[in-house]
Amino acid sequence: MDITSDIHSQHISRQFNHELEELKTHLMAMGGLVEKQVQDAVSALLDADSSLAERVVDNDRAVNDMQIKIDDECTRVLARRQPAASDLRLVLAVIRAASDLERIGDEASKIARNAIDLIENNVGNRGFVEVRIIGEHVRRMMRDALTSFARFDTELALQVVQEDEQVDSEYQTAMRSLMTFMMEDARSISPVLGIMWILRALERVGDHANNLAEYVVYLVKGLDIRHTDPDDLDQELGEKS
Amino acid sequence: MDITSDIHSQHISRQFNHELEELKTHLMAMGGLVEKQVQDAVSALLDADSSLAERVVDNDRAVNDMQIKIDDECTRVLARRQPAASDLRLVLAVIRAASDLERIGDEASKIARNAIDLIENNVGNRGFVEVRIIGEHVRRMMRDALTSFARFDTELALQVVQEDEQVDSEYQTAMRSLMTFMMEDARSISPVLGIMWILRALERVGDHANNLAEYVVYLVKGLDIRHTDPDDLDQELGEKS
Repeated sequence: MDITSDIHSQHISRQFNHELEELKTHLMAMGGLVEKQVQDAVSALLDADSSLAERVVDNDRAVNDMQIKIDDECTRVLARRQPAASDLRLVLAVIRAASDLERIGDEASKIARNAIDLIENNVGNRGFVEVRIIGEHVRRMMRDALTSFARFDTELALQVVQEDEQVDSEYQTAMRSLMTFMMEDARSISPVLGIMWILRALERVGDHANNLAEYVVYLVKGLDIRHTDPDDLDQELGEKS
Repeated sequence: MDITSDIHSQHISRQFNHELEELKTHLMAMGGLVEKQVQDAVSALLDADSSLAERVVDNDRAVNDMQIKIDDECTRVLARRQPAASDLRLVLAVIRAASDLERIGDEASKIARNAIDLIENNVGNRGFVEVRIIGEHVRRMMRDALTSFARFDTELALQVVQEDEQVDSEYQTAMRSLMTFMMEDARSISPVLGIMWILRALERVGDHANNLAEYVVYLVKGLDIRHTDPDDLDQELGEKS
């Protein structure tokens, strides 16, 4: 290869790497916004702050716009750069991750809408402890999942996958205790249902964080673990790595 | 271009078209299975057929396997054929659609698990009418969404998007009436909650069918309508087409 074309191809590849980095940066920015949406939605309920809840509902549009922008960028990169192997996996993982982040945004918006109803009807704080604990747990999962994506850290990603099982069990326990409470006091049915929808939404946030973590494993190891039992993961990864 | 290379490139492009057709065929097969899963899950509840419900839960593995297979095929096509423009959009739409179908499969499995509980506790048929009506409605949406995908029929796709609004309103009405029933009879709380989870799952199936329909519009018109208000769709499409 002569020097001019060598410099040219170095230039192309530097430009390409820059585009891939940009994709990651934009995904992280979207992740940051979505994480804040979940946090604000939960705080709005716990602090009975309706105007914060309404801001969360309004901001969902910004989340949606970010997804469309990231999808467009990914499509452009695929069309122009025709990436292969690990670069291709990165672009596909970004598309999938943006879709999960958008859905987390939807869940935040649902939490906020339920919070507005609950605040309006001034319903006491039954179930608030559970919302706070599970809310914190899934936010930590989200943050770890995003960090693992930024650093291609599969160890951290696998931790997130394991934690999703804990969240599911916290969620089941909370639901059972709320159902008992409903049975004891029929007047609590409507507000407690509102809390149940919020817990369900938080549990879904955990599922999406889990998906994000799974994409990191796919990205780094080229291994699709989406439908592997978490208990079998160590073995699978041991065999392939 | 000499004749040999012309024949060669015709051969490549025929091969490529064949691969794209295969992707669509496999997506439709997955759609058929998932549609049957939803139908069987609803029938299992309505006919109190636990063994059918258990088959639905077991079959979810087959749905998951189909998604992984389709994703792998799409990745291979992207890496080897480096498609552009509408071919690239098709491959991306297939990836997204397979992800929605997989999630519909998850919802079918949730419906089946709730059905097993409800049948075991022999809880009467409160809410069954609503499950049947909304179940039929979202199955029709799914079928139309898949047909619109197979035929690149944006008119049918837009019909699905409009119908999702109807399902949402049917769902809200059903939920309100079930809540009233709960309040009147505390012993009904646990079974009625089971029915509520099933209705929520069906409503999510409608959302995913709606997503499938939106990908068709994206595919054909190159227009991303995922976050457009259905009432503004006609205008948007009129402007772009």
